[in-house]
Amino acid sequence: MALEFEVTARVGAARRGRLTTPHGVIQTPAFMPVGTLGAVKGLGPRDLEGLGAEVMLCNLYHLVLRPGIDLLEDFGGIHRFNGWSGPILTDSGGYQVFSLSELRKVDEDGVTFRSHLDGARLRFTPADVVRWQARIGVDMAMVLDECPPWPVEERVARASLERTLRWARVARAADATGIGGLFGIVQGSTFRSLRERAVEELVRMDFDGYAVGGVSVGEPGPERQLAVEWSTPGLPEDKPRYLMGVGYPSDIRHAVEHGIDLFDCVLPARSGRHGLLFTSGGEVKIKNARYKADPGPLDPECRCSTCQSTSRAFLHHLMRQDPITAKVLCTVHNLRFYLDFMADLREAIAAGELPHESSQPG
Amino acid sequence: MALEFEVTARVGAARRGRLTTPHGVIQTPAFMPVGTLGAVKGLGPRDLEGLGAEVMLCNLYHLVLRPGIDLLEDFGGIHRFNGWSGPILTDSGGYQVFSLSELRKVDEDGVTFRSHLDGARLRFTPADVVRWQARIGVDMAMVLDECPPWPVEERVARASLERTLRWARVARAADATGIGGLFGIVQGSTFRSLRERAVEELVRMDFDGYAVGGVSVGEPGPERQLAVEWSTPGLPEDKPRYLMGVGYPSDIRHAVEHGIDLFDCVLPARSGRHGLLFTSGGEVKIKNARYKADPGPLDPECRCSTCQSTSRAFLHHLMRQDPITAKVLCTVHNLRFYLDFMADLREAIAAGELPHESSQPG
Repeated sequence: MALEFEVTARVGAARRGRLTTPHGVIQTPAFMPVGTLGAVKGLGPRDLEGLGAEVMLCNLYHLVLRPGIDLLEDFGGIHRFNGWSGPILTDSGGYQVFSLSELRKVDEDGVTFRSHLDGARLRFTPADVVRWQARIGVDMAMVLDECPPWPVEERVARASLERTLRWARVARAADATGIGGLFGIVQGSTFRSLRERAVEELVRMDFDGYAVGGVSVGEPGPERQLAVEWSTPGLPEDKPRYLMGVGYPSDIRHAVEHGIDLFDCVLPARSGRHGLLFTSGGEVKIKNARYKADPGPLDPECRCSTCQSTSRAFLHHLMRQDPITAKVLCTVHNLRFYLDFMADLREAIAAGELPHESSQPG
Repeated sequence: MALEFEVTARVGAARRGRLTTPHGVIQTPAFMPVGTLGAVKGLGPRDLEGLGAEVMLCNLYHLVLRPGIDLLEDFGGIHRFNGWSGPILTDSGGYQVFSLSELRKVDEDGVTFRSHLDGARLRFTPADVVRWQARIGVDMAMVLDECPPWPVEERVARASLERTLRWARVARAADATGIGGLFGIVQGSTFRSLRERAVEELVRMDFDGYAVGGVSVGEPGPERQLAVEWSTPGLPEDKPRYLMGVGYPSDIRHAVEHGIDLFDCVLPARSGRHGLLFTSGGEVKIKNARYKADPGPLDPECRCSTCQSTSRAFLHHLMRQDPITAKVLCTVHNLRFYLDFMADLREAIAAGELPHESSQPG
């Protein structure tokens, strides 16, 4: 089965859509909570469902390391393993290979590296990465890409992009039976001509969806936003677009305005675990002493179970005295904040307008 | 408002009952999940409610240390602070003073000690302990008791018991306005005559409920069961009875058969966090390699969200790779197991029989 993507409303380049996958429908623009190893830290699959998430992201690099593709295939796929019955998108692991692993060596046919966990020697090739994602039955798979750091010289970025494009061709030719849809990844760092060339080549390969990668790697915000602006105009209107690893609500809103449909970021969950909370009134650092006796809800406008049942003072108390509980309650709130933020954007597009910048936090 | 306790069915000494408190009704025999600092580790108040818990236990010793009685009173009580809207029982902290604190010095009027957290000097008196529980508005409060270790000489146990009884008299005379009901605590270690004397004296003081304390302090199982058997027969039939800190399902069943109505124990939550799970098929140590590829649910007979959505292999994977999530999912299961176990006992009593010993784990 292929993905089906229907755009139901537009405002400028922004689109409101419906993405149908083998495991269900996703209302777009959508935020995908990150469950690297199969779960969002602190939340079971039922908890994630209860939050209203319609899709989750897992990471191939980490899943290859543990529990391994063989085990996931024996289970009948990743959904049977982790108990999440909705759509799953896996990143190819390209970013992790280039950011986490050791003794990395790239050649024309793939990348050889040592696991950051135990030093075991591993090799990823563009075809293997597609086949692995097919064997575990993901709804949306990513091609293997090379993700250069920032900043990078144009010459280096160009050579890297050309290899990424050759790998994309190999990936596109691989047997993807079992995958809902395969996404090409637009690289090219912060160089307009490279981004535009990537789009042109990838579109020619006719992927089921397109990701914008190589952002959130340390570049300043304006460079990140330009990379999005250069990467989206050439993409086909009838395919879903995914901006990888971004980010702050302001960056998400900007990208939605430029036609991005899917997002993932560790920020809400990771910030939540550290007590940094996104609220309708701005950021709250709950460990701060000013919240010690604050009887109000974390965010009076939020309907998550944390805001509906507990106080800022209780979260402050737990963050210091019972961190596991605090992490869970704060993760729940931050994910709900992101999911609600996306719902507001979808509603605004459907209503023919985007929210006023000033009314949005972040 | 006082507690109201109605026995609705009996089998031998075992009772099925309804305990009405200012914050709601508890079906007994009941298990009270332990939320020392206001929350069961890893679970928000809504999660606990979702599990079917009807009452939770918090600990005065810990709450006095942080966030402090003043803050809880300013909040309008502990329920407003932690967001749990059902009944709350607080232990007086006697056990913690005698097991956790340092430089402890008992005198006729109370106990002076240093906080196990920061060495701050604190003093608990029988009247203060009642007033603190009144100020934070608990449904069931415990008197301050002295909890001797095991083993202890009869002479020492007798002197300790006499002081505990004098303290109970002081507590009974204190202003308990704001408390649903005040419980006396039967001490006496593993000495029959002391247990019986404690019961006689406490009943004369006419408490709203009676706790059996001084068990689960290291004594062997048969001694623990005898302490229960010696402590219960003299207690009034129309008042709730609470066995403190017990324990394994087999001990709970034994105590229910001897007329105990309320239980608390850290065992299910703490074991869950360590990957030791109670199931209908016996104990499961989920970290064991045999579960690495086990696709079955943790307990096929359990309806908790963990068993309904995930596999043993996924829990095994999480326990090694993502401990926060594993701890939450395993705590959910173990608490549900205990709550279901109590529901089965209640049903058996209502049906005129207790479950066959062989059909019960633990």
